[in-house]
Amino acid sequence: MPTLFKKIREVKNYITSLKCDGNKSIGFVPTMGYLHEGHRRLIRESKLQNDITIVSIYVNPLQFGPAEDFERYPRDLERDLSVCAEEGVDAVFAPTDEEMYPEKPLVRIEIEGLTDIMEGAFRPGHFSGVCTVVLKLFNIIRPDRAYFGEKDYQQLKVVQRLVKDLSIPVEIVPVPTVRDEDGLALSSRNTYLSPEERQSALALYMSFLLAEKLIRSGNRDPEQLVGAIRDFISRHEHVKRIDYVEIRDEELRPVKEVKEGDRILLAVWVGDTRLIDNWRVGDAQV
Amino acid sequence: MPTLFKKIREVKNYITSLKCDGNKSIGFVPTMGYLHEGHRRLIRESKLQNDITIVSIYVNPLQFGPAEDFERYPRDLERDLSVCAEEGVDAVFAPTDEEMYPEKPLVRIEIEGLTDIMEGAFRPGHFSGVCTVVLKLFNIIRPDRAYFGEKDYQQLKVVQRLVKDLSIPVEIVPVPTVRDEDGLALSSRNTYLSPEERQSALALYMSFLLAEKLIRSGNRDPEQLVGAIRDFISRHEHVKRIDYVEIRDEELRPVKEVKEGDRILLAVWVGDTRLIDNWRVGDAQV
Repeated sequence: MPTLFKKIREVKNYITSLKCDGNKSIGFVPTMGYLHEGHRRLIRESKLQNDITIVSIYVNPLQFGPAEDFERYPRDLERDLSVCAEEGVDAVFAPTDEEMYPEKPLVRIEIEGLTDIMEGAFRPGHFSGVCTVVLKLFNIIRPDRAYFGEKDYQQLKVVQRLVKDLSIPVEIVPVPTVRDEDGLALSSRNTYLSPEERQSALALYMSFLLAEKLIRSGNRDPEQLVGAIRDFISRHEHVKRIDYVEIRDEELRPVKEVKEGDRILLAVWVGDTRLIDNWRVGDAQV
Repeated sequence: MPTLFKKIREVKNYITSLKCDGNKSIGFVPTMGYLHEGHRRLIRESKLQNDITIVSIYVNPLQFGPAEDFERYPRDLERDLSVCAEEGVDAVFAPTDEEMYPEKPLVRIEIEGLTDIMEGAFRPGHFSGVCTVVLKLFNIIRPDRAYFGEKDYQQLKVVQRLVKDLSIPVEIVPVPTVRDEDGLALSSRNTYLSPEERQSALALYMSFLLAEKLIRSGNRDPEQLVGAIRDFISRHEHVKRIDYVEIRDEELRPVKEVKEGDRILLAVWVGDTRLIDNWRVGDAQV
């Protein structure tokens, strides 16, 4: 079983002892828990590259809007600890809100052109909350490498830019999205979906394959492609609303003509569940 | 002579060797150079409390507005190095702009209720630039303690809050303002003043003494006190404009009734020079 820490002071002492004891390299996997196969890949990647792997499990209230699913977000620490044990995680940091934020943080962190688009536009304050908790966790854990899934592609880009702009001494390692056999991107929020909704949610993945097909057949116009994706998705039952569909380059700058390596990113409400997904153009042979 | 580093990579290697070599404690004094007695006090305080003292000398372009004195700001690295040598500084980090910002940072850092008042209101973006460079320098130097003068009181409070909100593993040590014999707070910008302007600039210090006198005589109303200070200062020749005069508590919250420990803070243009100063109520027996 991994060692479980709930106090900042205690996990910091543990880290200090690791640093002094032969300068062990530390891999860090920050999560909101309810671990699935996607998290397992992050952990495995960390174990390959580091002496010690630490997982944090913390549903960060700062990154949820007032009308969002903070209360409802699934939690199961006991099961998460078994997953971590199975994967050979060395330590789990699972602080309480009181421990993380004895006082409400007043800091706001924005990144021009990155936190004000897509997720940032639809979830004001979301990335400021993400940046705050990530900086806090980095300052507590002081990892050599930190692992982020490409499922949250915009978050990955925000964290990479934060690390660059602030000279944070950590290597950010992106790990590809894990999908179910039918193509649905793994997410702790999939647990919200009824079986019928889950079927409709496959439209997200299928829309990427459709876009790939259109691109191969010569359509390189982002507006037309976005239109086709929107049409396709909105034809599915239980699809309540499309927050956005965008095609951007890998650094999330707008593109005029779609090329391999660009990203299709979208957020769609299926029933009462908001799903996000993204796709690297060129990743499917269709 | 202190060792001079101009490259991030090189100073980081030096820090790593210090950390490994018996875990030496590191005191850090971030400055914009043109060192005066105020900086010397910061350095001496650091030398008392740490094994190693590192001074950074960097005029940070990010914290200057487009119409401000970035170009004009006084610079003299050679003299600064002699001052550091006299004070027994171990290492000086003096990076170029290219080294610090190979690319323009896109991050913006604000602290609600702290970066939007006084200096923040009159110098939009100033504190975001300060926070960015301070976080960068902390990530590069990884000090145990960092020394900030109370002369820039609002900056001190911003940095303290940043450290708290982001769990940065550094102790911020405030050091009292150093004044010339006639009461003028030491500042590298005093070099801009003509002898006549310097004489007028004494009005700032004298206005604090006036306020102390009024407070002792029973006037506790911040608005009346601010009015008296404004009147007094504006009667002086060369005083072009008063940006603000405020009385706040030591955490910079507004006050309804002035008490010992509160701060009087002001920014005044004398000729073409913008001076700031502040005063702890109760510090003078008048």
